[in-house]
Amino acid sequence: MSGAPMIELWRGGRLESAHLGHAVICDTTGQIVESWGDPTALIYPRSSCKMVQGLPLVESGAADAAGLEPRRLALACASHSGAAIHTDTVTRWLGDLGLSEADLRCGSHMPQDKPAQKGLVCSDTQPCQIHNNCSGKHSGFLTLTKHMKAGPEYVEIDHPVQRAVRAAFEDVTGEDSPGHGIDGCSAPNFATSVTGLARAMAAFAGADGKPGARAAAMVRLRDAMRAHPEMVAGEERACTNLMRATGGKVAIKGGAEAVYVAILPEAGLGVALKIVDGGTRASEAAIAALLVKLGVIEAGHPAIKAHLGTQRNWRGIETGEIRTAPGFA
Amino acid sequence: MSGAPMIELWRGGRLESAHLGHAVICDTTGQIVESWGDPTALIYPRSSCKMVQGLPLVESGAADAAGLEPRRLALACASHSGAAIHTDTVTRWLGDLGLSEADLRCGSHMPQDKPAQKGLVCSDTQPCQIHNNCSGKHSGFLTLTKHMKAGPEYVEIDHPVQRAVRAAFEDVTGEDSPGHGIDGCSAPNFATSVTGLARAMAAFAGADGKPGARAAAMVRLRDAMRAHPEMVAGEERACTNLMRATGGKVAIKGGAEAVYVAILPEAGLGVALKIVDGGTRASEAAIAALLVKLGVIEAGHPAIKAHLGTQRNWRGIETGEIRTAPGFA
Repeated sequence: MSGAPMIELWRGGRLESAHLGHAVICDTTGQIVESWGDPTALIYPRSSCKMVQGLPLVESGAADAAGLEPRRLALACASHSGAAIHTDTVTRWLGDLGLSEADLRCGSHMPQDKPAQKGLVCSDTQPCQIHNNCSGKHSGFLTLTKHMKAGPEYVEIDHPVQRAVRAAFEDVTGEDSPGHGIDGCSAPNFATSVTGLARAMAAFAGADGKPGARAAAMVRLRDAMRAHPEMVAGEERACTNLMRATGGKVAIKGGAEAVYVAILPEAGLGVALKIVDGGTRASEAAIAALLVKLGVIEAGHPAIKAHLGTQRNWRGIETGEIRTAPGFA
Repeated sequence: MSGAPMIELWRGGRLESAHLGHAVICDTTGQIVESWGDPTALIYPRSSCKMVQGLPLVESGAADAAGLEPRRLALACASHSGAAIHTDTVTRWLGDLGLSEADLRCGSHMPQDKPAQKGLVCSDTQPCQIHNNCSGKHSGFLTLTKHMKAGPEYVEIDHPVQRAVRAAFEDVTGEDSPGHGIDGCSAPNFATSVTGLARAMAAFAGADGKPGARAAAMVRLRDAMRAHPEMVAGEERACTNLMRATGGKVAIKGGAEAVYVAILPEAGLGVALKIVDGGTRASEAAIAALLVKLGVIEAGHPAIKAHLGTQRNWRGIETGEIRTAPGFA
């Protein structure tokens, strides 16, 4: 778990805090182009692999049978903010399936979207499972469950949906997963090496023109994310802002405990990184630095400077800087 | 900055994230009793040293001249949640000084206290500087400024208040500070070694019965914190909960970027720690572990289990565990 120095916080000319991590860039043959830290480190991808968890939904034909348009496919890959555009879409989606909020198994939490929060707090309303950032992924699981005529407990490890997810995950990472943990949303999350996750992202990057349902599903999910960045996270969120800033060139996704991935179809590259301490500010800064390094966005773009550069306090006074560590990116 | 392994997050039987840190326990002679990581590591104490920043306020006679009772002294050492008990007290305090919110130099941010947040959000009201978690410390600075008949820009590095703070800081840490950074609240924050900060806390622990205004000020500030834990942070906050849980035996204070200190008068010990990556969950878990080690609270107390032990998700399903790393505490 040692990791390479990746992101540093400076204050008053002194290093105040530092983050270590692992990062891998793979090409479409699955080979490592460049890496930092330990490329064999085992990680849980957490929400960064939602596009992999969405593969069985698309390649099974379930998505087409349910008439899922790209916005819903993007939402199936999302850790959304629970804004109205997200919750309205999930509500209609569940309705179209003949299901309801009670069929979800993700649990409830307060949405991250400020207007949605305000609406709930000021009306003394508790959030429901539709507000859960994973409710789009779970709607995808329910869509596949219905298509498979499987039972309602779709997050159980032996449920056909999770068996299909594991098979797809092991296939695209090129590794037998050593096992799983239970995610915040109660779904199994399969462990892989950082290289395995980067290899999976490179497979999404290089799927164009390849034969078969798997490749077609990869292109559809990846391109749905790039076409609808507002569905994948939300306003003021790094995923959405970085995808918008690259003008749709890159599909980007973060996960809890500081995992980040990027799919670069034009360059034929996949990226995965994990900050050892789980600090999201560092994983956002690290993926921003790698996107600059890979030439898909300028270092001076506001979406990059939000994560790397001058830090200011409540009165706007400069207090320090977030930087990449020497030797990283 | 390397640090020793301190806090680990486990999920599905695998290490998911890990935090490194430095920690020192000093006795009242200023000697190290035990340490982890690098005791000479330079850190910014951030808000963990507010009781040190409060020393000139008390030892100058300014606090008595202004009639500050223990609740206000505790608030001078606080990173408060901006609950009504905090903001009402600051408002009255400023009024007693013949000053107002406009005289503060800490900037404004949304309070952490949920009812206070709700009040502001649902009435479309912006937070003011009184809501800033440092407004008690700044009211202390203003009290001293008035007593010294000094100018209004009390956060400037050459202002008599900050000169007095630096002198007290260097005296109790036993080190010449190598310099300062600007804190979130715009006040200077002086760098010291982890040992220097632990030595300062041990000085507070051993101040009883010693002659002079400095020792008397230490006892008053430390005991004000222990008597009014609700003023030092707020409901559902680690500082407040851990102080309450030790039954007033210990004064505890956290700071930004994962610094934590503890003052144990009965044991005659001072504790300081810094998590290298700045992750607050880890500094809270680490101080909790050290309090258990030092025998001032049971490992099974809910205030400890809030930071160390089983982790559950939105549906209450067990997902993993937060533990101390082998060799720590």
